[in-house]
Amino acid sequence: MIRAGIVGGTGYTGVELLRLLAQHPEVELATITSRKEAGTRIDAMFPGLRGRVSLAFAAPDQAALERCDVVFYATPNGVAMGEARALLDAGVRIIDLSADFRLQDVAEWERWYRTKHAAPELIAEAVYGLCEVNRERIRSARLVANPGCYPTAVQLGFLPLIEAGWIDTAHLIADAKSGVSGAGRKSELHLLYAEASDNFMAYGVSGHRHWPEIRQGLAQLAGRAVGLVFTPHLTPAIRGIHATLYARLLAPAAGNATRDLGALQSLFEQRYAAEPFVDVMPAGSHPETRAVRGANLCRIAVHRPNESANGGDTIVVLSVIDNLVKGASGQAVQNMNIMFGLPEAAGLGQLPIVP
Amino acid sequence: MIRAGIVGGTGYTGVELLRLLAQHPEVELATITSRKEAGTRIDAMFPGLRGRVSLAFAAPDQAALERCDVVFYATPNGVAMGEARALLDAGVRIIDLSADFRLQDVAEWERWYRTKHAAPELIAEAVYGLCEVNRERIRSARLVANPGCYPTAVQLGFLPLIEAGWIDTAHLIADAKSGVSGAGRKSELHLLYAEASDNFMAYGVSGHRHWPEIRQGLAQLAGRAVGLVFTPHLTPAIRGIHATLYARLLAPAAGNATRDLGALQSLFEQRYAAEPFVDVMPAGSHPETRAVRGANLCRIAVHRPNESANGGDTIVVLSVIDNLVKGASGQAVQNMNIMFGLPEAAGLGQLPIVP
Amino acid sequence: MIRAGIVGGTGYTGVELLRLLAQHPEVELATITSRKEAGTRIDAMFPGLRGRVSLAFAAPDQAALERCDVVFYATPNGVAMGEARALLDAGVRIIDLSADFRLQDVAEWERWYRTKHAAPELIAEAVYGLCEVNRERIRSARLVANPGCYPTAVQLGFLPLIEAGWIDTAHLIADAKSGVSGAGRKSELHLLYAEASDNFMAYGVSGHRHWPEIRQGLAQLAGRAVGLVFTPHLTPAIRGIHATLYARLLAPAAGNATRDLGALQSLFEQRYAAEPFVDVMPAGSHPETRAVRGANLCRIAVHRPNESANGGDTIVVLSVIDNLVKGASGQAVQNMNIMFGLPEAAGLGQLPIVP
Amino acid sequence: MIRAGIVGGTGYTGVELLRLLAQHPEVELATITSRKEAGTRIDAMFPGLRGRVSLAFAAPDQAALERCDVVFYATPNGVAMGEARALLDAGVRIIDLSADFRLQDVAEWERWYRTKHAAPELIAEAVYGLCEVNRERIRSARLVANPGCYPTAVQLGFLPLIEAGWIDTAHLIADAKSGVSGAGRKSELHLLYAEASDNFMAYGVSGHRHWPEIRQGLAQLAGRAVGLVFTPHLTPAIRGIHATLYARLLAPAAGNATRDLGALQSLFEQRYAAEPFVDVMPAGSHPETRAVRGANLCRIAVHRPNESANGGDTIVVLSVIDNLVKGASGQAVQNMNIMFGLPEAAGLGQLPIVP
Repeated sequence: MIRAGIVGGTGYTGVELLRLLAQHPEVELATITSRKEAGTRIDAMFPGLRGRVSLAFAAPDQAALERCDVVFYATPNGVAMGEARALLDAGVRIIDLSADFRLQDVAEWERWYRTKHAAPELIAEAVYGLCEVNRERIRSARLVANPGCYPTAVQLGFLPLIEAGWIDTAHLIADAKSGVSGAGRKSELHLLYAEASDNFMAYGVSGHRHWPEIRQGLAQLAGRAVGLVFTPHLTPAIRGIHATLYARLLAPAAGNATRDLGALQSLFEQRYAAEPFVDVMPAGSHPETRAVRGANLCRIAVHRPNESANGGDTIVVLSVIDNLVKGASGQAVQNMNIMFGLPEAAGLGQLPIVP
Repeated sequence: MIRAGIVGGTGYTGVELLRLLAQHPEVELATITSRKEAGTRIDAMFPGLRGRVSLAFAAPDQAALERCDVVFYATPNGVAMGEARALLDAGVRIIDLSADFRLQDVAEWERWYRTKHAAPELIAEAVYGLCEVNRERIRSARLVANPGCYPTAVQLGFLPLIEAGWIDTAHLIADAKSGVSGAGRKSELHLLYAEASDNFMAYGVSGHRHWPEIRQGLAQLAGRAVGLVFTPHLTPAIRGIHATLYARLLAPAAGNATRDLGALQSLFEQRYAAEPFVDVMPAGSHPETRAVRGANLCRIAVHRPNESANGGDTIVVLSVIDNLVKGASGQAVQNMNIMFGLPEAAGLGQLPIVP
Repeated sequence: MIRAGIVGGTGYTGVELLRLLAQHPEVELATITSRKEAGTRIDAMFPGLRGRVSLAFAAPDQAALERCDVVFYATPNGVAMGEARALLDAGVRIIDLSADFRLQDVAEWERWYRTKHAAPELIAEAVYGLCEVNRERIRSARLVANPGCYPTAVQLGFLPLIEAGWIDTAHLIADAKSGVSGAGRKSELHLLYAEASDNFMAYGVSGHRHWPEIRQGLAQLAGRAVGLVFTPHLTPAIRGIHATLYARLLAPAAGNATRDLGALQSLFEQRYAAEPFVDVMPAGSHPETRAVRGANLCRIAVHRPNESANGGDTIVVLSVIDNLVKGASGQAVQNMNIMFGLPEAAGLGQLPIVP
Repeated sequence: MIRAGIVGGTGYTGVELLRLLAQHPEVELATITSRKEAGTRIDAMFPGLRGRVSLAFAAPDQAALERCDVVFYATPNGVAMGEARALLDAGVRIIDLSADFRLQDVAEWERWYRTKHAAPELIAEAVYGLCEVNRERIRSARLVANPGCYPTAVQLGFLPLIEAGWIDTAHLIADAKSGVSGAGRKSELHLLYAEASDNFMAYGVSGHRHWPEIRQGLAQLAGRAVGLVFTPHLTPAIRGIHATLYARLLAPAAGNATRDLGALQSLFEQRYAAEPFVDVMPAGSHPETRAVRGANLCRIAVHRPNESANGGDTIVVLSVIDNLVKGASGQAVQNMNIMFGLPEAAGLGQLPIVP
């Protein structure tokens, strides 16, 4: 059994991590800490866990954390970077669900997160935990930066096209829609039921912290900087991200096969054939966010609409995840499984809840 | 008082038309016909109208319709085109909320609507009822083709840019999201609460009937054919359309002013300065669909995100309407007001319902 | 024109009051004050009002309020009671949407609201603004205590039965369900979309501040104390209250007509025949909250289920209102109309928004 | 491994049964039949099952069903009663999720279901599958009538009180609220998103098929007929039933302990101490439907509000379940586990999905 600790855990990624770890056959939940909620029973805050999780939130306790094999940070940005060094030195492996170690460029991180980074020396060591890209490096990682929710959906959708060199990476568009839980368990007016229900809106169009994270990941795939417009929207759903991705196909070199819809479909199917948590839907599909609700899955479909009338070159990729599972806590457990040599799907077998 | 008749009226655009006409100071609702519901009191089907609308649905009755000044068709596609000629000959003016007269190209109409057009000779006469474009022609029109909901939001969003010649019209993208009422009052599984709630999905990515309608309108503005990718999505809200529009700016001719965000904002504000039902929001705004809920309004905001990093040339326009009001019945009443020389805002003063 | 002022107005009853007053033909909105938001344009906080309300929130200003004919308090409990005396002395009439003057028993008020009452001498003068009960007293009132949302729906549902003396008032049950806006525009965790959506729960079962208010009103109708169990619930809707009321019929005196469903229906219809904002639905109806959405209406239906099998004596009354309109701001405007001798329905003609 | 077959399965109880059986460690899903959908892959109809359920719907096939150990009927009412005899004769055990065998009184069944019962001789043999009441009889049952959703929540809430003889069973009230999935996967107008969202309403107040089922169960507990008013409501949620139950306490015999809230709490805790799927919440709790979403659980809280003011004798019990799990398919699996001697919780360990 792997001894797991959680720092934080009073937010939505925290309670989702608890749900997944409580059902994981190889994990013992050793401790969970919260400065603010120390002493509160977890199942008093989250009654859904009654009968299954009997811990109370503990006050922060370095010794207890050091007795863990792995510690998850389910904290606001800025906490993990201050504590990671000591735990790593004690031999504990870390999976950080916050943004502290996601950007390799310290200056860019500091610009977007408006604070000085507390552990820049750890950034280079941190492995970006997008399993489908970095699986080998994750195996031996001490410190994994778990990807953001939008970045997971967007990168997995563009990935086969960029790896294959089929699209113009200077003008990518990601029009993404998120359920409200993506904003976290925060008492903010615009997240109230009476504000967010029966409504739809964009936000952060002129700049969102996931934009540099996505660009970094796509640039790594492309081998050069990419141009990206990223437009997040808030949709009245609890969970779910739907990314609608637009890119223009490059003309194949003379003599090469055309890049019609069949070729695109094959490209995606082959890239993800061995991936346990990426499902390429049949050509022409429209994946729904509810078809991944509660499950560690990314479902993708590729389209080439109105082939002649739009110039024949713009393709549309639809990519859906549950922002709290494949977009956060499920991917964190997947990373843990990889890091500790467990079957990658251990504890991640939950089927989506439909309806 | 203008004597108005409605053909159909058992769907969502019908009941919305009833709500608006019942509150219109210059309209007498003379008759409403429904073959299927003849004899049913309107307020039995729509209890919200109890005490305000005392009519029952009548069986179709040509004489009663001919006594009207104007007849609205709130019917499925294919009805109005069969009946319009006789009413026009009787001197009745027609506002058709269905798609029968929206496309000027008969062959294209027949391809998308999969039936032979019953009155091709009326198509040239029909005026496309996008008030902000065709106001003068609407004044004297006998037959108005009321625009579709998506086409209204998308055309109003692109309009100033295309008229000014500032964008590349060969590669336009309209990523649009609609509340569920846009699909009509139809007993279809995918529209059930338990299917459409807590969910988000695209549909019709490979082809949607509003695509040729939008392209026709934009081409007319541009003076040439345009390239357009149009991706509709279903969002769990009753009402509302949010169109997120992407276009690449063309470089201004040498010596001309740059097209920065300020210039874009001015372009939109000037174009719509005199429009009573288009509201250009302040620069940097994110219009919400609920801010137009129940009101005959289109609210628009323009953005130029990450100016340097995306090549500096892709702009984003956000355009929201209530699909049943400015996207259907409200615009129909606006057209009626124009046709009959009434104040354009008569009966359309309802403020949005927020929250 | 009546000069109206609003104190507070940043919450949901405030913005609803603004929506209604902005459309009222006989009202000039003179000032709106908010200590916290002074200087903020109202339409910046509530974009739905853009183009129709051009005021900004003013800092509290006694002189400006004293120039009004009527001042509405749309403030948290505890504000109006501290300011009312001075305004009344200046000849301004007051409609208080908070709970400060709703309970006639000062000690009970202080027990439930956990604070000392600042103006106990005004309580006796305050008229409880349930128009259907106190219309005559409201005409000349200087200070109206606008009823709570639950109390409006529950009292109107029980009223005809208690006035007629047909039911056992010692064991009344009111099982009430409210949309989330009833809790106000407050940043509280349990009101978040991700908490309140796709969920249903009771709250305050062991005690809720509307319980003494309802009991006071019913006791006044009955002429003696009543027994009442009141169970509020939170339902995932923005607006709407649905009260399901249970009472046991008393046996009629010998020789009197039986109290069957027909007699019950007549009782309700006769009591409300002249009321412009109470609609008794046909026997057997199930009123929906959406059929009053945005409108100043209470719709009621009476049932006598399983007549023989339940002992024949328990009846069920269904009563629905929009909590922000007939349950708050609409009723406040109705009170104003009565106080100033305007047509009672002035500015309250909005039809429900359906769907 | 137990070989399980499903007849029907295209509705919501069907897909939920598939979700649970696909994750059950001791079950092999042998066949699933649907006359209408024969040949359709299950995961084409329910994409959430992609990668986990590879069967297609088969045409009805008696031989295939006879090779099963257990057959679940997830069909509309009226199917199971026509087919049960043959399967039972072949030695197959049956769990019927429809209502065909729930009522022991044939005449009453025929009155409520408006059809002649096809297998009245099996009714006496059928065991009503409310596990907490009939566990011993279920072990050896050949034919289990799986309870309805409302009846499960209401019976479990009243059960301890009736067994103990503490309440007046002549005047019980069950005010119950259901999510929309309870109405099934049916194309009906009132179940559309645009009709059921942002709305709340009662239905079937004058008579609902679950009323005789609940009365039968409660009468069995009481040892005599009971009086019950049952009021179902539709709430805008996908899943979940919340039953708010009202009963009047009988005075204890002289010398007996008082029945205060503490005694009530103990009564419930003791009755359900050994039940794996009934959770008695702490005194004063308000169970939420989301705290059982997706899980085979009934959570219950008991209240005695306003002890003195309401006469001291009306108590309120709150009982919540997921209508598709403990109210249907989860309870069916629980019954199967009992029938086949498996651990009662096998395959039922899913934690609720929160948020």
